[in-house]
Amino acid sequence: MNLQLDSNGRLRHFLTIEGLPRELLTQILDTAESFSSVIGKPVKKVPLLRGRTVVNLFFEASTRTRTTFELAAKRLSADVLNLDIGTSSTVKGETLLDTLANLEAMQCDMFVVRHRDSGAAHFIARHVGPGVSVINAGDGRHAHPTQAMLDMFTIRQKKGDFAPLTVAIVGDIMHSRVARSEIHALNTLGAGEVRVIAPRTLLPPDIEDLGVRVFYKMEQGLKDVDVICMLRLQRERMEGAALPSEAEFYRQYGLNQQRLALAKPNAIVMHPGPINRGVEIESSVADGPRSVILPQVTNGIAVRMAVMAMAMGAVGEPA
Amino acid sequence: MNLQLDSNGRLRHFLTIEGLPRELLTQILDTAESFSSVIGKPVKKVPLLRGRTVVNLFFEASTRTRTTFELAAKRLSADVLNLDIGTSSTVKGETLLDTLANLEAMQCDMFVVRHRDSGAAHFIARHVGPGVSVINAGDGRHAHPTQAMLDMFTIRQKKGDFAPLTVAIVGDIMHSRVARSEIHALNTLGAGEVRVIAPRTLLPPDIEDLGVRVFYKMEQGLKDVDVICMLRLQRERMEGAALPSEAEFYRQYGLNQQRLALAKPNAIVMHPGPINRGVEIESSVADGPRSVILPQVTNGIAVRMAVMAMAMGAVGEPA
Amino acid sequence: MNLQLDSNGRLRHFLTIEGLPRELLTQILDTAESFSSVIGKPVKKVPLLRGRTVVNLFFEASTRTRTTFELAAKRLSADVLNLDIGTSSTVKGETLLDTLANLEAMQCDMFVVRHRDSGAAHFIARHVGPGVSVINAGDGRHAHPTQAMLDMFTIRQKKGDFAPLTVAIVGDIMHSRVARSEIHALNTLGAGEVRVIAPRTLLPPDIEDLGVRVFYKMEQGLKDVDVICMLRLQRERMEGAALPSEAEFYRQYGLNQQRLALAKPNAIVMHPGPINRGVEIESSVADGPRSVILPQVTNGIAVRMAVMAMAMGAVGEPA
Repeated sequence: MNLQLDSNGRLRHFLTIEGLPRELLTQILDTAESFSSVIGKPVKKVPLLRGRTVVNLFFEASTRTRTTFELAAKRLSADVLNLDIGTSSTVKGETLLDTLANLEAMQCDMFVVRHRDSGAAHFIARHVGPGVSVINAGDGRHAHPTQAMLDMFTIRQKKGDFAPLTVAIVGDIMHSRVARSEIHALNTLGAGEVRVIAPRTLLPPDIEDLGVRVFYKMEQGLKDVDVICMLRLQRERMEGAALPSEAEFYRQYGLNQQRLALAKPNAIVMHPGPINRGVEIESSVADGPRSVILPQVTNGIAVRMAVMAMAMGAVGEPA
Repeated sequence: MNLQLDSNGRLRHFLTIEGLPRELLTQILDTAESFSSVIGKPVKKVPLLRGRTVVNLFFEASTRTRTTFELAAKRLSADVLNLDIGTSSTVKGETLLDTLANLEAMQCDMFVVRHRDSGAAHFIARHVGPGVSVINAGDGRHAHPTQAMLDMFTIRQKKGDFAPLTVAIVGDIMHSRVARSEIHALNTLGAGEVRVIAPRTLLPPDIEDLGVRVFYKMEQGLKDVDVICMLRLQRERMEGAALPSEAEFYRQYGLNQQRLALAKPNAIVMHPGPINRGVEIESSVADGPRSVILPQVTNGIAVRMAVMAMAMGAVGEPA
Repeated sequence: MNLQLDSNGRLRHFLTIEGLPRELLTQILDTAESFSSVIGKPVKKVPLLRGRTVVNLFFEASTRTRTTFELAAKRLSADVLNLDIGTSSTVKGETLLDTLANLEAMQCDMFVVRHRDSGAAHFIARHVGPGVSVINAGDGRHAHPTQAMLDMFTIRQKKGDFAPLTVAIVGDIMHSRVARSEIHALNTLGAGEVRVIAPRTLLPPDIEDLGVRVFYKMEQGLKDVDVICMLRLQRERMEGAALPSEAEFYRQYGLNQQRLALAKPNAIVMHPGPINRGVEIESSVADGPRSVILPQVTNGIAVRMAVMAMAMGAVGEPA
């Protein structure tokens, strides 16, 4: 049985894109679309999660991601508790499971979990009680499913249908939870072709099994694509000599105007942020007319609202 | 006059159990019971403190306790301000009393105070203006009255009446504000017999004056008790050689299944948390069917809601 | 065109008092007066900014100032996000402008900015999109306009009209953003005479151009004044040997009872806080009957509510 779904096929936890049916991903996108109009209004609140408590359980610092979940929860009228686990209960020797049991006993309804270890969100989801939902806000190299869904939302918003699209994911595939989640989402939603472009040293050995076409050169991989998903160079996650230098990486894999010209004329450029200007992407591209990097951020709030509301049973029917 | 009560005998500050009449403690338990059903519902909010401002003034870090007060305040619909005093106004040389005067001038309504010095909450309560209430969230070795009341709530919930009960408090009595507050509460509520079990080095000299029977051995003290209140070994509060070693302490005073078997068959096991597994308590006991450690946490929210609402005059008549 | 006003002359950003028309300052004071009654009530909330998101962007730590803005925003029913920029996005190499663009993309409505560099709030205001307002909560030595307006509110509250008043600003004029903003506000509102009293080493060379009368001795400068605005000795902003010693400063410029006696009999004493007792001001004066230091704090909430509500177009017509 899928840990993420309840017995009626409804979303209960949101841990990974892998294994979720296409109908459910589409339902997330449709629900996000309905919230999308709300957050553009002066009163950006809906009362769907009033009286519910959402806990941001961040074992790895990320103000940016935490902020998007905090805003999404507040716009659903939930109460939000931010717990920086590095500096709290572990100080007194409390174990993770005891911390979770305590927060559950306090009648918290949802844990948004960020952790440097792959599988941390699944581990937590397996141990929470029946009334609690877990959202993965990024675990190690494994998954970052809300990021992938906001990318899908942005692609659908700009391109309509997934079927005719060729999408290229560029950069440090090896260390990227975003890449893994994007590949699963694109394939589940039926994208025409999913490409990855990276040096051999930044590609996991089994990458083709995920259903992608591998390119080692930008000049080949970007040809006629509809969507370019740049990845952030995760300097903090790279060990040893996998990479010659940032300058060399930029020379070979940085997205500049010349390379962008290889893609289709109306191709869009995405990036999960924060961008490293001059490392993965030229500023004129990041800030240019093809860039949808800031719309991605806006859509991220709507998508997180959708996932939270669905996991708490506040919207939606079984997909 | 009792600093904690107003001229009509209503709760104004909640600083210590000592000196509070039995009727008032019972009123806190009854009020908590009424909130107890609210926090089990999906919409866990009541509008009793809407528009009021509760300040968590924590001079000693405790994410866990702060979290319970923050949740309690939010479920009463109050606005909550978390001030970590170690890193704020004292930086600029502002004294404690100036900080308080400023927060009062900002029309804050309640201070929840945690401090490593005994008497800190009383000191603050003596200096605030007439519109402000102070709740002691733990001061040095002195008192932790909301913890004691959530313990009482849990005992009443599981056992009904206090009169026939024998209650044993086990461990580091010397450094425990929880033990002091529990002893006062149990005696005020008329518990049949209150026992403490500890090595001589962890017992204050005048302990029997508080109305307890002293035992130095678990095998004697646990005999036929109805309730076992384990204490946390406060390593951070112990100076010098009061204790031989954690292993030796566990050998003599740790609660395991064999010792638990000395108590009455339906005895319950409590612990204020966070538990040190294998130091004060065996995991199989902490997680076993007699343990009410997690219900204590749940009840802690309801009890703190009750104390806050009563101190702000939002519920209740004079006891 | 004034960056602070929209094309209809309405407040859009609040960055500095300089250049704002008298009518607008009066409108802020009048609006604050209407909020002033709200914050004295048990339910201290108005729904004017419900569903709006206010971000406290503090590049310089100031719990005290942040707290006043947080309370003001919450009493207007806004959602508040506290971002300590020193420890967040800059860690990942994100530039300030990218951080702003992201927060805007998240549909945040207002940035309250504190920064150690003069001009930081203007810089940010020039770069935000049309829907976003910026409030300066103190930038370097430049401006602290909400502090100046709460001082004006307090003066008007105690003295009525500005025209007949002689106001003395005392202390470290050189490093004080509060002094600069007070001088602009007093002159714009038509105060009879604005004096500064300071040693030559703590006076900027062009100070008289701002429309003040300069005194080097308390005994002369305090003579017959109606209002005394003490400044905080900004030890952290003073470099080198501008000041002989705190003791020497206090001997020459500290406000004590003898010096206060030189002012008019009903003169009031103000201080932006936090006060350095025995450095700028004697405790008996700070806590005495002429002191309006705590009313300033109370008024600070109302004034910040007024500025926030006006900048978001939630109250008021063009001045």
